[in-house]
Amino acid sequence: MVRDEMKVGVAGCLGYTGFELVKLLDKHPNITLEVLTARTPNTVSADPRFSLQLKQGYNPTISTLEDADFSTCELVFFATPHGVCMEHAKKLLNEGITVIDLSADFRLGDPKLFETWYGMKHSAPELLDEAVYGLPELNRECLAGTKLIAMPGCYPTSVILGVLPLIETKCLINTLIADCKSGVSGAGRSATSSTIYGEVAENFKAYAVHGHRHLPEIKQEIIGIVNKSKKQVDSDNFDIQFTPHLLPMFRGLYSSIYIELIEDIKQDALTELYKARYASEPFVKILPKGVLPETRFVRESNEVHLYVNKFEKSSYLNILVAEDNLIKGAAGQAVQVMNLVFGFAETIGLK
Amino acid sequence: MVRDEMKVGVAGCLGYTGFELVKLLDKHPNITLEVLTARTPNTVSADPRFSLQLKQGYNPTISTLEDADFSTCELVFFATPHGVCMEHAKKLLNEGITVIDLSADFRLGDPKLFETWYGMKHSAPELLDEAVYGLPELNRECLAGTKLIAMPGCYPTSVILGVLPLIETKCLINTLIADCKSGVSGAGRSATSSTIYGEVAENFKAYAVHGHRHLPEIKQEIIGIVNKSKKQVDSDNFDIQFTPHLLPMFRGLYSSIYIELIEDIKQDALTELYKARYASEPFVKILPKGVLPETRFVRESNEVHLYVNKFEKSSYLNILVAEDNLIKGAAGQAVQVMNLVFGFAETIGLK
Amino acid sequence: MVRDEMKVGVAGCLGYTGFELVKLLDKHPNITLEVLTARTPNTVSADPRFSLQLKQGYNPTISTLEDADFSTCELVFFATPHGVCMEHAKKLLNEGITVIDLSADFRLGDPKLFETWYGMKHSAPELLDEAVYGLPELNRECLAGTKLIAMPGCYPTSVILGVLPLIETKCLINTLIADCKSGVSGAGRSATSSTIYGEVAENFKAYAVHGHRHLPEIKQEIIGIVNKSKKQVDSDNFDIQFTPHLLPMFRGLYSSIYIELIEDIKQDALTELYKARYASEPFVKILPKGVLPETRFVRESNEVHLYVNKFEKSSYLNILVAEDNLIKGAAGQAVQVMNLVFGFAETIGLK
Amino acid sequence: MVRDEMKVGVAGCLGYTGFELVKLLDKHPNITLEVLTARTPNTVSADPRFSLQLKQGYNPTISTLEDADFSTCELVFFATPHGVCMEHAKKLLNEGITVIDLSADFRLGDPKLFETWYGMKHSAPELLDEAVYGLPELNRECLAGTKLIAMPGCYPTSVILGVLPLIETKCLINTLIADCKSGVSGAGRSATSSTIYGEVAENFKAYAVHGHRHLPEIKQEIIGIVNKSKKQVDSDNFDIQFTPHLLPMFRGLYSSIYIELIEDIKQDALTELYKARYASEPFVKILPKGVLPETRFVRESNEVHLYVNKFEKSSYLNILVAEDNLIKGAAGQAVQVMNLVFGFAETIGLK
Repeated sequence: MVRDEMKVGVAGCLGYTGFELVKLLDKHPNITLEVLTARTPNTVSADPRFSLQLKQGYNPTISTLEDADFSTCELVFFATPHGVCMEHAKKLLNEGITVIDLSADFRLGDPKLFETWYGMKHSAPELLDEAVYGLPELNRECLAGTKLIAMPGCYPTSVILGVLPLIETKCLINTLIADCKSGVSGAGRSATSSTIYGEVAENFKAYAVHGHRHLPEIKQEIIGIVNKSKKQVDSDNFDIQFTPHLLPMFRGLYSSIYIELIEDIKQDALTELYKARYASEPFVKILPKGVLPETRFVRESNEVHLYVNKFEKSSYLNILVAEDNLIKGAAGQAVQVMNLVFGFAETIGLK
Repeated sequence: MVRDEMKVGVAGCLGYTGFELVKLLDKHPNITLEVLTARTPNTVSADPRFSLQLKQGYNPTISTLEDADFSTCELVFFATPHGVCMEHAKKLLNEGITVIDLSADFRLGDPKLFETWYGMKHSAPELLDEAVYGLPELNRECLAGTKLIAMPGCYPTSVILGVLPLIETKCLINTLIADCKSGVSGAGRSATSSTIYGEVAENFKAYAVHGHRHLPEIKQEIIGIVNKSKKQVDSDNFDIQFTPHLLPMFRGLYSSIYIELIEDIKQDALTELYKARYASEPFVKILPKGVLPETRFVRESNEVHLYVNKFEKSSYLNILVAEDNLIKGAAGQAVQVMNLVFGFAETIGLK
Repeated sequence: MVRDEMKVGVAGCLGYTGFELVKLLDKHPNITLEVLTARTPNTVSADPRFSLQLKQGYNPTISTLEDADFSTCELVFFATPHGVCMEHAKKLLNEGITVIDLSADFRLGDPKLFETWYGMKHSAPELLDEAVYGLPELNRECLAGTKLIAMPGCYPTSVILGVLPLIETKCLINTLIADCKSGVSGAGRSATSSTIYGEVAENFKAYAVHGHRHLPEIKQEIIGIVNKSKKQVDSDNFDIQFTPHLLPMFRGLYSSIYIELIEDIKQDALTELYKARYASEPFVKILPKGVLPETRFVRESNEVHLYVNKFEKSSYLNILVAEDNLIKGAAGQAVQVMNLVFGFAETIGLK
Repeated sequence: MVRDEMKVGVAGCLGYTGFELVKLLDKHPNITLEVLTARTPNTVSADPRFSLQLKQGYNPTISTLEDADFSTCELVFFATPHGVCMEHAKKLLNEGITVIDLSADFRLGDPKLFETWYGMKHSAPELLDEAVYGLPELNRECLAGTKLIAMPGCYPTSVILGVLPLIETKCLINTLIADCKSGVSGAGRSATSSTIYGEVAENFKAYAVHGHRHLPEIKQEIIGIVNKSKKQVDSDNFDIQFTPHLLPMFRGLYSSIYIELIEDIKQDALTELYKARYASEPFVKILPKGVLPETRFVRESNEVHLYVNKFEKSSYLNILVAEDNLIKGAAGQAVQVMNLVFGFAETIGLK
């Protein structure tokens, strides 16, 4: 039986992702926000986002993560920097509290890979096996009742959803080039010399072209799916490239994916494949011919918009994917996962 | 002998490209602006760009193109919509006046291709053979004394310069995927429902994915170069894809080009190849490792910034190209060509 | 008794205001959208805003205004250009249909004033007397059951709410300088040379400084209120100035109002005056000391945020007002008025 | 006799103002950049602005300010945070080196006022008397040969130039309300939570309404001018208010000044007064009727654009002022002052 009311905590409520989560949970009819944490708890009540944009009367406890008492919560979300959740997850799990981690701590199954890409030792490698990768369209059936969920990165969400139908049943591709563009909110709310207005507005650039942390995550998931499928391709020879770019805007993520097909498939068959795969997905829309995805149409929405375009007289396919990096790419998808884990209707609080 | 002063005309001075041209020519020490044309000549003198941003005392004749008297000009630039220059070029050429066309009228050698892509009959097909494609880095030696020049499109400029060293001597590639992004000034200054602020700001989208007018131009030039090189590839099987996107900013163009190499080439050799090819080019810079192109660093500049990145353990190469679409992609390159055609130092008025 | 469901029409659904209205009504639990009109009805179904951002299954009739059949509607909103509603209002009122006009047709009580400022003859001057000015905070008690409502302009909404407590009971001011700034959506969705991205982004300017159409509206309402109050000032000598500016952003309106007080009033008394006046207003918030209004905190909200700042050692007062010009300044306020006219709870569909 | 070449230093070259200064000096035909300082000298050579946007071959010494050797310089600019220049000025002056300070250290004549507004003790109060306020239009005749110059703040530059003709000969005003708006570059290049993209874009707000540091500077200069004029007003009763706002853009500053006139003056007389006063000023333009200032028309220019608008049937006057806060509001004006101090033509390097 689904409870009418569930008490949750949010660690890291001041960041962009953390606050989006608070906003979504604030509107969710079944959720009570019990505990919020921030490195500077005093700034929360002074922050006009909290005083002006949330329901009146809403009144969680606010403290540092170290001082937080989550004992009345069934669930704690971590919207903290990488390296924080892994320090606290074990204790919470031992107390029977579910953990949904929006950081990267439990995304990579191999702790050495984590160490390489995130530059720190993993302090809870024994939990990696039990963490479920929280992409509902991929792992919905494993989510109910799960205790530890690693939410996908914003880029991997768009790239995996972009190619899933092509690799799931049998692998139809051997090259994947993901040219991805993100609004600056993807870099978080910390003030850095690369996120100030003067460095972002009226400018466009690629970044991290020699290796972005989302690349091993994309590879792990894509190759994992391919290996489970009736694969026609040796995953060692699988060519996956990922080039992120920074858009002069706040929110929105767009992936232009170029795929080399192993065998020729007609546009109509491709469209059918995608439509069939996502027919019952509440948050994935395949746009009709001529209606291209735009980030504004998914702004503040948990939807992903997809467009499949087979280039004429070419073995290449172009897939365009738009999402809101803070919603489907982070906070919204975390709420979607919460709904699935705890048996709420999947779309509650998100439509 | 180079003349100290040359009189020129600009047809279409109110558009973004036309006005950039006027600004550049206004500063060029050897140029006198004799004649400007606009569909609404009265608006020119009332336009604060002209009254506030140009040299005082500057005083060309302003009229419609139909009424314009170019007889005192040695050169007329056309910054007009497609279809206009081809109506006037013959007459001007007959009078011994050089024509530099920034529109698409003389870019495609095959008039049928023009008809297909631009939706209008070509009215001066007999001139197509004599038009030189005005990309200085490709055709510098043909430019001196040329009478009719077709200036490249903004996207083709970046894509061709991005791959030139790989195809010129011998063709090292068989697949070219150009994921290109442009600021909205590329769409011109006409008020349309897709260029108003509310449709552009805080939004990102692909457009014209089923065929953009710059695709046949890119193909024509790339295949032309390949056919002249010691080609290792059948150009019929050459896979060239081009996906344009609209950036939420005014000026700047960025091309992320993905190339499948025919043979493996190391990063160092690639860097050397590019550096050698462009060593004496005044406006092409190969950026050093770790310094990625950004559109702001070429803003209002005639420079192109290039970055060559061989993906590790992959047959693919990534080339990043930044240009100012209104300068190197249009008005600046036209001035560079003018300097070459008339024997001025190539960089005068542009550095 | 309030009906559970009410059928309404929206004339002019493609503009920014019209579409915001459709979005709000789409979410309103008691409203069924029966009829939408547009000058180009075919573009409505093709418009991704309608297909991607509204509830599925939503299916009103779409036609031109001339062809529209509103006979099943109890209420029609006009989000049309000035001059349109006055041509249709009489017929609808005769059929017993309520009209809420978001254009300026019924704002000015004097048809000659309308003629002077809007450059067209008023075709329904006999209706002006019965039109109620739809500012709920001013005219709430007159709204229930009203048949013709003239919704305030976006600037007047902010200026009147900004000074209402100072003039309503007794008039405490004799000079009002409104320095107002609006996002470009205030200019509507028509493509014009002044609303294209390149003219708006990274730019700031005043406009219409020699007389903006909202000035007579502000004067009419302010002087009307003053005349009803225990006035201490001769309204002929009342100095009201209004300077609008264009912000490089899409939505949001900010008024910085400078008031010369007739008598000295302390900051605390002023704050109290404002708090008391707006204590029961669901959409007006007086921000506490140090929390200044920002347009982002009212973005997509029907709230107005006010800040009252008495300059030290000065007879002047500064009032800062933030609103979303498309919501409280247009579509949201129209829904608020609809709720009041038809007896729904005032905040339904707006919180 | 004016020297052909002058060696200068710039302390604080990495900030927005510092780098604009470097760019302007880099283009100035008579200047050699000898020494640059930065808190992190290593980042200067790695900064693409320096490697990509400046002349090749340009090669100053780069060090921390503490380690800098300015002994070969005739002039050092300080584009450092407040409190830095006053620590170094005395030593440089003793060595015969001229100091142009773009920070606030020497703007306020009263060291106690400095202490109140800047929260630090003044460490060189004995120099305050000899510092000249570097507003050329006000103090041109005192600048030649001056050794210590305090450059005006960006807001004061626009406000003082906006009202100078009205107060200089005889004081015609008694109230001055300056509603000012600045792009975010005015806040400098330090990464702070209020200058990151997400807090600036698509937002507008007032700030520092209870007292901005430029208010005492505006008051000091305005009252100083009034006291020297044939004043008709007691400066104790002079009401000067200043409300700064943050624009969602990078560069550009706009002041909308509201003035209460002591005596009625007609629009024509006012226009004449302004035109006459600024007739020989190379960087101040009075725009003709109907052409309103816009920040884009002074972008990257040292010009100030002014518009004078007497409200009809009102004792108030509206003056609109546009400047580039980084050029006329900072670096450009500093170069203009340098030209005057050292006897170069005033506009060299600035037109």
